[in-house]
Amino acid sequence: MIPLLERLKKDILILDGSMGALLQGRGLPPGYAPDLWNLERPKDIQAVHAEYRAAGSDILLTNTFGASRRRLAEYQAEGRIREINHAGVELARRAAQGKAYIAGDIGPFGSTIAPFGDTTFEEAVGIFREQASILAEAGVDLIAIETMFDIQEMRAALIGVREGAPGVPIMAFMTYNADGITDSGSDPETVAAVLEGFSVEIMGLNCSVGPEAMLPVLERLGRATHTYLGIEPNAGLPVHRDGKTVYPLGASEMASFAPAFADAGANIVGGCCGTTPDYIRLISKILKGRPPRLRTPSPHTRIASRTRVVPIGAGAPFVLIGEKINPTGKKLFSEAIAEGRTDMIVAEARKEAAAGAHALDVNVGVPLVDEALMMEKAVIAIGNVVSTPLVIDSSFASALESGLRIYPGRALVNSVNAEDERLEEVLPLIRRYGASVIGLLSGDDIPEKAIDRMKNAEKILKAAERFGLSPRDIVFDTLALTVSAVQEASRQTLETIRLLKSEWNAHTVVGLSNVSFGLPMRKTVHDTFLAMAIGAGLDGAICDPYDPLLHQTVAAASLFSGRDPECRVFITKAESWTPLVPQGEKGAAAGSPAPGASPATPDRPLTTRERI
Amino acid sequence: MIPLLERLKKDILILDGSMGALLQGRGLPPGYAPDLWNLERPKDIQAVHAEYRAAGSDILLTNTFGASRRRLAEYQAEGRIREINHAGVELARRAAQGKAYIAGDIGPFGSTIAPFGDTTFEEAVGIFREQASILAEAGVDLIAIETMFDIQEMRAALIGVREGAPGVPIMAFMTYNADGITDSGSDPETVAAVLEGFSVEIMGLNCSVGPEAMLPVLERLGRATHTYLGIEPNAGLPVHRDGKTVYPLGASEMASFAPAFADAGANIVGGCCGTTPDYIRLISKILKGRPPRLRTPSPHTRIASRTRVVPIGAGAPFVLIGEKINPTGKKLFSEAIAEGRTDMIVAEARKEAAAGAHALDVNVGVPLVDEALMMEKAVIAIGNVVSTPLVIDSSFASALESGLRIYPGRALVNSVNAEDERLEEVLPLIRRYGASVIGLLSGDDIPEKAIDRMKNAEKILKAAERFGLSPRDIVFDTLALTVSAVQEASRQTLETIRLLKSEWNAHTVVGLSNVSFGLPMRKTVHDTFLAMAIGAGLDGAICDPYDPLLHQTVAAASLFSGRDPECRVFITKAESWTPLVPQGEKGAAAGSPAPGASPATPDRPLTTRERI
Ligand SMILES: [Zn+2]
Ligand SMILES: [Zn+2]
Ligand SMILES: [Zn+2]
Repeated sequence: MIPLLERLKKDILILDGSMGALLQGRGLPPGYAPDLWNLERPKDIQAVHAEYRAAGSDILLTNTFGASRRRLAEYQAEGRIREINHAGVELARRAAQGKAYIAGDIGPFGSTIAPFGDTTFEEAVGIFREQASILAEAGVDLIAIETMFDIQEMRAALIGVREGAPGVPIMAFMTYNADGITDSGSDPETVAAVLEGFSVEIMGLNCSVGPEAMLPVLERLGRATHTYLGIEPNAGLPVHRDGKTVYPLGASEMASFAPAFADAGANIVGGCCGTTPDYIRLISKILKGRPPRLRTPSPHTRIASRTRVVPIGAGAPFVLIGEKINPTGKKLFSEAIAEGRTDMIVAEARKEAAAGAHALDVNVGVPLVDEALMMEKAVIAIGNVVSTPLVIDSSFASALESGLRIYPGRALVNSVNAEDERLEEVLPLIRRYGASVIGLLSGDDIPEKAIDRMKNAEKILKAAERFGLSPRDIVFDTLALTVSAVQEASRQTLETIRLLKSEWNAHTVVGLSNVSFGLPMRKTVHDTFLAMAIGAGLDGAICDPYDPLLHQTVAAASLFSGRDPECRVFITKAESWTPLVPQGEKGAAAGSPAPGASPATPDRPLTTRERI
Repeated sequence: MIPLLERLKKDILILDGSMGALLQGRGLPPGYAPDLWNLERPKDIQAVHAEYRAAGSDILLTNTFGASRRRLAEYQAEGRIREINHAGVELARRAAQGKAYIAGDIGPFGSTIAPFGDTTFEEAVGIFREQASILAEAGVDLIAIETMFDIQEMRAALIGVREGAPGVPIMAFMTYNADGITDSGSDPETVAAVLEGFSVEIMGLNCSVGPEAMLPVLERLGRATHTYLGIEPNAGLPVHRDGKTVYPLGASEMASFAPAFADAGANIVGGCCGTTPDYIRLISKILKGRPPRLRTPSPHTRIASRTRVVPIGAGAPFVLIGEKINPTGKKLFSEAIAEGRTDMIVAEARKEAAAGAHALDVNVGVPLVDEALMMEKAVIAIGNVVSTPLVIDSSFASALESGLRIYPGRALVNSVNAEDERLEEVLPLIRRYGASVIGLLSGDDIPEKAIDRMKNAEKILKAAERFGLSPRDIVFDTLALTVSAVQEASRQTLETIRLLKSEWNAHTVVGLSNVSFGLPMRKTVHDTFLAMAIGAGLDGAICDPYDPLLHQTVAAASLFSGRDPECRVFITKAESWTPLVPQGEKGAAAGSPAPGASPATPDRPLTTRERI
């Protein structure tokens, strides 16, 4: 067989249906762990696989959905985890007879991760890692992570699987409610962003509410990501009838959705609870041999909280990253952090979010403070009050890691630069936690010329590639230097933005406030610089979100940078603005109009004819 | 002999000295026209030329300084203008014996041009044209226009000489007072800009205050222009001693300045009143065979009033062209113009100049008004109250011409576009009057894409070349279109600016106010656009100079575009500014600081180390 990922380029593949329903038919008692049958009733398991294979399944899910140490422990079977998973793979393989791919199936581990549950994130990672490593050893073609309700558990699973089964493709399915949101509050776009952070080979959705309600979620995923997509619906929402759980949708009703799935971009279609080989046979008949719909990759870097995604890049709204959660130069703020208090952090986060920041930089760097511990506390505390995605900002890798680990989204890390030591320390964290990173274009020194900053960008890019990251995982900080100190270097920042955009279509941010240091009228200086930088292609800025001029500048600059189609955002925002005037003045502008002068600008545009 | 202009590339050339002093020695009575001796005492004239030739002169000035129709009429000799000038050339040529270039000499025509005198500009042009045409016919190698005190008379002379002696190189010398200013108030930089408008082959200074005071003027010219330079000083300021006019500087004193002249960039050195072959012999000894100093051409377009020059281009201060002298949409203003009154124009000009406009657009287009007449009146009236250079703006070539003719500087014309008819109508006027022109990048339509606007720019450039203009005579208007109407086209304006700058190092302006038409917060929109455009390389804007935000934006953007070395201009201007706040607010910014928050920006810049 050709490798799965090659095959997916050409064909829509058919997954299998429910194992549980068929095993119950073969006598599996309610409440008994199906996974144990891999050892106790191997012929039944193999037979079910064979039925699905015969019905047209190109991929067979092993009977190991609950075969993690924690789930098996519920049946005192944790000691047989290795046998059970090996047997699961072997039985599927026998049934496949070389004509189907074997997906090692992994389900939720059975508890909740801290801070909401009592399993630590790393414990959860370890549970997933163990099962994945056994499945990989047994020789699966891919690993399926299924029926995840909690994005944080999915993250733990992805880290565990990548570590336990390196090089094995991952198919990652979340389960959504009828409103298109997971139990953890994540919408499809957010999930797509988080999963892309881990470079999952296939993402999708399974179980839950049935094909009709799942179709819109699939469609949203199809627009949100270029990753291969899979869908595995229940046969409708289960109902209880005569003391039994019944699924309302028949095989042909279910199969009638198959063309729509394909249109939405599905690459893999199967069935979940309530489906049988009959369902699969019909779906297979409709889709087999059909080429998948091509989807265009979005060029954006997407960062996400648990519930909100923010794209960064050309055409996306300009991203304001609030700089206020930072103790530098703030006495009370520093003291609060030193005392381990998050109250001021939380207050600032609320305020920045209310002021319109699209992401929040979180820096808790205070001397002698356990920054790793404080970062974890801060990330949790902020996540409880705002849904704005976070930028984890520390010079300590340990603090970056504790923040990334606990963060139930796709964070941006501030930052690496082109120094070897920093690259080797930080990039593995970005890879492990599926994050994205700001690549600061400094190295051993800060290059004056754009061309030398490009060399640092190239070094960062190559290092990122070496650690398994893609260019889309990096947002470059082009170094907005203090203009009053290094004027030409500051100007070269604009040229650097332009080069990164025109040569690589790379995404860029700058730390804005530094630019104006040492000058009067600082806001005027850095907001004007910001407009120039947006004109050069800048995608976001780390800045003071409380500055009203900044918001106006960004909205106006967005008009001329492809970030506000038909000026809609500007017009809407302007409704709540008043014109800016020199402080102390009540009227419009300095000076009174000359006799007979019109308002400052004519009431209609001059035509070209009038101007020539 | 190789052509003069070829020779100047390699060698400093020596001019002759005073003709008058030597002729007096040969019996020329005080008050008698020396030019008449070309016919009456030809041997004496030829002998003086021969003396200078023997002393080392590479260029001989013909004895025709006063041989214009108007000057000869003072001696009832206007009927012999042809003979006198022909003889003047012939006598110099005989003396030269093929070893010196013959410069047909032209001095002031003897009256003052309107509006200060009663000779019309075209009458003056005609007088110069007539003499130049005779000199050219007689076969001079170049024409020297000497001892001009009034820049407007120089303009008339240049137009006359170009028309009377097409293809003959021009050496144009003004005479400066001890303060480095001409009688008409023009400083060397302004004169250089005006003379460059006529592409004079050599410019410089003669007569007047002697070498010591003239050297700084030469040095300023050397920095202001890449045109070949000539200097021809008096032997010091004349004094009266024993009833005779005596020049205080001896030959060796005068000659001691020769090395400094060469260092300042002089290509041609001679002597004026009070100098004799002895002077020339010493100067020749010092400079002959010495290579001229190379000067780097300034890439700027320079526009000028009679007394002030404004450069346009990269590195020069950003140019604000006031848009207020324009009757469009202004009832009272239109009525004033319709009544032939200039009072409102003058008031607006004063106010725009006071508001900091660097140039003033002058548009007097009111239906049924004689626009040519009104333009002339407006240009004169404005020139009486402000020294700001003017932009002559009309859709009628007749109005452009009447404005250009009367304007004693180097105007910018608003505008041509890429339409054949307009190009053929306007470009000859630009050439004749030594003006510069805005090239609007529209043609039969307004191209959306930058690349298509570049095609219009190329068409304009080629047409300009055909009419004898250089790329430096053109400032392109990249068409700042209304963003709410044609958003992508408006964005392409920025790309057009970038292309013009990066591919041709061309100069660009936009008409700013149009951009924001139809949107709320118009100033925010067009000032933000302006910052973006300056970032893309924009050199100037036609705009509302009364908008305080605009001035702050321009000053701040100048920091990042190489237009304000060491931030000096910004810091100085900021002293008189107050921060901009939303209208109605007294305090700094919206929202009050969070507990423990520092001021909006930290008191010191974060180091790169702190940021990573
Ligand atoms: Zn299910
Ligand atoms: Zn299922
Ligand atoms: Zn003289």
